[in-house]
Amino acid sequence: MVPKVVFGEGCFDQLSSILSSKKKEKAPFIYLVDNVFEEDTKFLDRINLRFNDKLIFVSAEEEPKTSQVDTLVKNIKSEFTYLPSGIIGIGGGTVMDLAKAVSIMLNNKGSAADYQGWDLVSKKAVYHVGIPTISGTGAEVSRTTVLTGPVRKLGINSDFTPFDQVVLDPELTKGVSKNQWFFTGMDCFIHCVESLNGTFLNAFSQSYGEKAYDLCLEIFLGDTLSEKESRAKLMMASWHGGMSIAYSQVGVAHAMSYGLGYVLGTKHGVGNCIVFQYLSEFYPKDVALFKQMVAKHGVTIPQGICQNLTEAQLNTMITVALGMVPLWENALGADWEKVITPEKLRELYLKM
Amino acid sequence: MVPKVVFGEGCFDQLSSILSSKKKEKAPFIYLVDNVFEEDTKFLDRINLRFNDKLIFVSAEEEPKTSQVDTLVKNIKSEFTYLPSGIIGIGGGTVMDLAKAVSIMLNNKGSAADYQGWDLVSKKAVYHVGIPTISGTGAEVSRTTVLTGPVRKLGINSDFTPFDQVVLDPELTKGVSKNQWFFTGMDCFIHCVESLNGTFLNAFSQSYGEKAYDLCLEIFLGDTLSEKESRAKLMMASWHGGMSIAYSQVGVAHAMSYGLGYVLGTKHGVGNCIVFQYLSEFYPKDVALFKQMVAKHGVTIPQGICQNLTEAQLNTMITVALGMVPLWENALGADWEKVITPEKLRELYLKM
Repeated sequence: MVPKVVFGEGCFDQLSSILSSKKKEKAPFIYLVDNVFEEDTKFLDRINLRFNDKLIFVSAEEEPKTSQVDTLVKNIKSEFTYLPSGIIGIGGGTVMDLAKAVSIMLNNKGSAADYQGWDLVSKKAVYHVGIPTISGTGAEVSRTTVLTGPVRKLGINSDFTPFDQVVLDPELTKGVSKNQWFFTGMDCFIHCVESLNGTFLNAFSQSYGEKAYDLCLEIFLGDTLSEKESRAKLMMASWHGGMSIAYSQVGVAHAMSYGLGYVLGTKHGVGNCIVFQYLSEFYPKDVALFKQMVAKHGVTIPQGICQNLTEAQLNTMITVALGMVPLWENALGADWEKVITPEKLRELYLKM
Repeated sequence: MVPKVVFGEGCFDQLSSILSSKKKEKAPFIYLVDNVFEEDTKFLDRINLRFNDKLIFVSAEEEPKTSQVDTLVKNIKSEFTYLPSGIIGIGGGTVMDLAKAVSIMLNNKGSAADYQGWDLVSKKAVYHVGIPTISGTGAEVSRTTVLTGPVRKLGINSDFTPFDQVVLDPELTKGVSKNQWFFTGMDCFIHCVESLNGTFLNAFSQSYGEKAYDLCLEIFLGDTLSEKESRAKLMMASWHGGMSIAYSQVGVAHAMSYGLGYVLGTKHGVGNCIVFQYLSEFYPKDVALFKQMVAKHGVTIPQGICQNLTEAQLNTMITVALGMVPLWENALGADWEKVITPEKLRELYLKM
């Protein structure tokens, strides 16, 4: 788990004092910042670059890739003589995952692709700090960093992946567009549904998952919260949702969303929403609630994204989804292959 | 926060493999074990003592003391040449607090009493593991270790206090007596009430506090849980409740319970219950719920414990309670002294 957390509106300004004790001589702090902030001078002025610290803007347009991690690591290593004092990720799930992966790969040989899987990392990561600016993915708290590699989309799951420090400042999520707010929030809702309805569930995950789920209902279906309260609560929903899946597993929507992401580059949050609406047979109550939320917020979910797929693309999509064995086992038990066949997935994908 | 946790029935048996990576040559693991287990050979056989590891039984009859910590540290230092590889606390809140305090004091000079307060500890504690065998106090997750010192009852609150590893095995709470189960569970319920109704509340603490509170209602007022489910959920309630107060504060019941504990040695859990029943003016809805729980479980709360106090004792009790300034501020705001006078506390204590 993440050992240190600060929370609260404006707590971002504690960052300098948090980092001061971690500064090593000649070793810079590297800030990986979502490029949506590139023009936001007011925000950028609050990042206190000192000595040889470096700020790198990264695009979250696409899901993070192992090749992107490798390039970042190579550039950092070639520019600086000393390993960084720390990596600070400021952004959404993509930037969180990049920051975690870069901090691991600065201390481990080879390509990030070599470490996709479970507990393959042998050396401690460089000190790394996560500062989410959008809520829902749970990437700020999770033990994974999901990356698209040359052969698969899979996380680097390890004890060294979680951030050493997280700064939860709800104020930073103010500028998020409505669609992104909704899709990313639904990532949280959907992974709670999958965790709570999964066969791997235990009381630990359940308690976190239930809280995140309840917060999502309050935020997305309730009418009593101020914007400020809603922002703070969604940040906590993301946190608890991430904790819930850290100790259990996601399910059908994530498995199929990985397929969309791998072939079409569909972003994780919207991919989950595209898939989830067609999963009534697996999660009937929650798909109904989801549709209420979509209607309430007037959000349009992309349609027909699989209509022009080639046969080869569709097969790849199905293969990637079927490869997510732990997710299917969690969703449907050991006999999942009786329910989820390539034909079944083809039929579902073609609706999307 | 605690960086590593395992959870689940039977997970206690993972302890050996968890510790193996922390073993330093010639440096023992010291197990501080609640002496209720002294005759429980079946349980003791599951503790894998190796090399010069040592098991020390400690009594949880009384609240933990700074002098007790100092003695344990002195004995460990005089028996072993090397600082321990780790301290493993197995027991209730008292043993948790002792394990945390001993691990701090093995690496910091002077008496534990010197560190009662906030952020007075300068050196990292020895690696320490918490294994709760009773649920409710939240001591397994908290950033404090509450100790009775020569001049006050106050925690060692520091970044080095939390356990490095916690093992949450609900099975270990099987043998707890009904009264102890209830009083310790109510410690959780009451600190959630105090946190949720406090002026220091924020969305972080609220989300944890609400979950713990909901779990308490399910466990103590519901009728649907099996014993096994109830045990697991109470362990999680304790965890979330501890997290809630780690980032907020407790209130009236804890302030007054500290007074009882200091003068009469009243154990924390039962002390909270003794106090809480008389706090309708501060927490009306929750005192009513509390009384329902007491009735439902046929628990008898000790009465008349303050009747034979000397005037000096009563004054000490009032002084100790009034000294808990952050608790009063949390409960009643900056103007708390207008409501809570020595006379007011005298009147309340004399009901107990």
